[in-house]
Amino acid sequence: MFHVTPLAEALSLAIDHFSNFSAKKVRVELSQALGCYLCGPVSFEEFVPDFNRSTVDGYAVRAEDIRGCSESNPGLLRLIGSVEMGNHSDLRIDSMTAVMVPTGAEVPDGADAVVMIEYAEKFNEDEIAILKPVAPGSNMVFRGDDGKAGEILLDKGHRLRPGDIGSLAALGVTEVEIFKPLKLGILSTGDELVRPSEKPARGQIRDVNTPLLEAFSRQMGFEPVVHNFIQDQETLLDAALSQLCESSDCVLVSGGTSVGVRDNLARVIEKHGQILIHGLAVKPGKPTVIADIGGKPIIGLPGNPVAAYFMTRMLVKPLLMKLINTESEEISVPAKMAAAYSSNQGREEFVLVHLEDGMVSPIPSKSGLITNVSRANGFIRIPRDSEGLAKSDEVRVIYL
Amino acid sequence: MFHVTPLAEALSLAIDHFSNFSAKKVRVELSQALGCYLCGPVSFEEFVPDFNRSTVDGYAVRAEDIRGCSESNPGLLRLIGSVEMGNHSDLRIDSMTAVMVPTGAEVPDGADAVVMIEYAEKFNEDEIAILKPVAPGSNMVFRGDDGKAGEILLDKGHRLRPGDIGSLAALGVTEVEIFKPLKLGILSTGDELVRPSEKPARGQIRDVNTPLLEAFSRQMGFEPVVHNFIQDQETLLDAALSQLCESSDCVLVSGGTSVGVRDNLARVIEKHGQILIHGLAVKPGKPTVIADIGGKPIIGLPGNPVAAYFMTRMLVKPLLMKLINTESEEISVPAKMAAAYSSNQGREEFVLVHLEDGMVSPIPSKSGLITNVSRANGFIRIPRDSEGLAKSDEVRVIYL
Repeated sequence: MFHVTPLAEALSLAIDHFSNFSAKKVRVELSQALGCYLCGPVSFEEFVPDFNRSTVDGYAVRAEDIRGCSESNPGLLRLIGSVEMGNHSDLRIDSMTAVMVPTGAEVPDGADAVVMIEYAEKFNEDEIAILKPVAPGSNMVFRGDDGKAGEILLDKGHRLRPGDIGSLAALGVTEVEIFKPLKLGILSTGDELVRPSEKPARGQIRDVNTPLLEAFSRQMGFEPVVHNFIQDQETLLDAALSQLCESSDCVLVSGGTSVGVRDNLARVIEKHGQILIHGLAVKPGKPTVIADIGGKPIIGLPGNPVAAYFMTRMLVKPLLMKLINTESEEISVPAKMAAAYSSNQGREEFVLVHLEDGMVSPIPSKSGLITNVSRANGFIRIPRDSEGLAKSDEVRVIYL
Repeated sequence: MFHVTPLAEALSLAIDHFSNFSAKKVRVELSQALGCYLCGPVSFEEFVPDFNRSTVDGYAVRAEDIRGCSESNPGLLRLIGSVEMGNHSDLRIDSMTAVMVPTGAEVPDGADAVVMIEYAEKFNEDEIAILKPVAPGSNMVFRGDDGKAGEILLDKGHRLRPGDIGSLAALGVTEVEIFKPLKLGILSTGDELVRPSEKPARGQIRDVNTPLLEAFSRQMGFEPVVHNFIQDQETLLDAALSQLCESSDCVLVSGGTSVGVRDNLARVIEKHGQILIHGLAVKPGKPTVIADIGGKPIIGLPGNPVAAYFMTRMLVKPLLMKLINTESEEISVPAKMAAAYSSNQGREEFVLVHLEDGMVSPIPSKSGLITNVSRANGFIRIPRDSEGLAKSDEVRVIYL
């Protein structure tokens, strides 16, 4: 048995240890930036909008000129012209005048509100009748309402969503400086492994962790660097790990959960670097290793794919996110246990579940085979000090 | 004013109308399938695991042979050999015998449990002492426990997540048949538009919808087909729309919210196809058009980018998902209003909010400029028949 560290403690220790990790930066075109992480804040460089703008088809007015008007007692204003969409207008609204403005067009200086076209009628050649008063500021946006030059819109480390791409375009940002996608070295080890395309002989299993971790890297916005899986031999491991340390920013080595093999990984790491954590108080995921080779995080993941899944999501992801100034937020929803679930005290436990109509059913799995991740739509965390959950207990489900 | 249709009704009408839409299929390598949609169910073709497997380092035994054993009264078993990782073993556990098995290795026939190495001691050359009994089935997985040949694992239309990529690899699926990513034609229209790289003159605005919708297409796993934005002229619109109808599976035309321009789009569509819905009882998003040209969905989106954002997310996305047999599920969490919010009765309303510590603050926005989507972390839906929300009202927040 080996000493195990609580996950939260291990994560926080690793974050501290790698606090000097410096991710490369790169400029990309906006159209390539979806899902990338900003390496600096983005601020408004100009006023948005840069002019007073109508939000309706209507008439730009001074609100005070039509105070108290009504259908029976309309306010008469002199119509002094109209603004063309997309053009600046030199028209100026003075007392008792109005200008026609389409949606999105500039509201001329002097106006402080727009009356919707529905509440105005042509009175004669030069005049319109306003049938309803408006409050100052109605149906228009003032210059800078959505952003003032210098104001920060997106923080350093923010991962760009479609709406952010729109926002950046609105600010005139067409190239954006991002953290260069981290290269994640991926290496599966194990004498029992065969390629997914092969039919395993009795006693063999397919290498699931390579495609799993490759997909995970992509989903996180990182770049997978895949090494072919290797057998559990120290010299092979040394060569493969050295190669991945050269070409990657972080290496995920999975497998080697049995004592002898774990020792191989430990020996190879100690030859080139330093082990920070060996063993976590978590289920599944106990035989996880966190190490440092040349300032790069090397994570030894369990060979069991479900354990590798949880440790990638709950340890590797938040660690790497933090290294590029990003908070990794898991979205969880409250729900109730549909059945009791007993847990090992002393180890935090992750349990795959099916959430439906607010009720949580744990997915029974002795083996923790990866297909259960496909059967699940979420998982729950059971704290270290809990002996389990009773039926109807409140839990939070994290979506897969 | 034009007749408006509730969003849910419009969506359901559109789904019915396009029920014969047939998306193309394509086979891709598993490593390219993340985020793609399955065009048929995936079933287990073999038993998983295909052999009885140990989940610990230990000794394969017959549980009944060591019933009632303890440290003071250990059960003695004859050790008849060990199983090598990755190899099939012809050993057979008969009465009062045991075989050493590493984690992940095959449990020999005849055994129905594995005793962890911690609870066994070497007694002499040929015998081991078992210090703790085990229940039948302990510390091992039986053949087919995780899946039996023929059982469906992933449904048609399922969007592949990293865990699913792992599951498919585990099943030996290295190529997967998916719906070919739908091609989404994207066209912005408006006399006031300039490229995002240009500084808008007074009265002009940057074309935000093109990059926004392009990013949205990518996020949904679709392929954007971008046309340069055009001015609001019927002939230009006709030419651009015809071109996009040729090259895409669905076309999103944004802009043209003012009456004259909307008429252009309506005229062009009626020349080539049929308008299904013109105007939604939703805010923002009222001037949305749903049409059919040659069996392809043509969606006229509002020019306002926030309205275009919501209509893409709440109408286009669920419609297109449905066309490829996928349910579009928005994840929402319960929370409380931090302040009151008044709403227009008669139109469903989407309100951008900031959710923090379970409290929801609406993001004030008269203009609905797109930068507010970046400031928000979620949104709420206010039903048509509601006059608004009081402080502390329970709402559900959908994450952005």
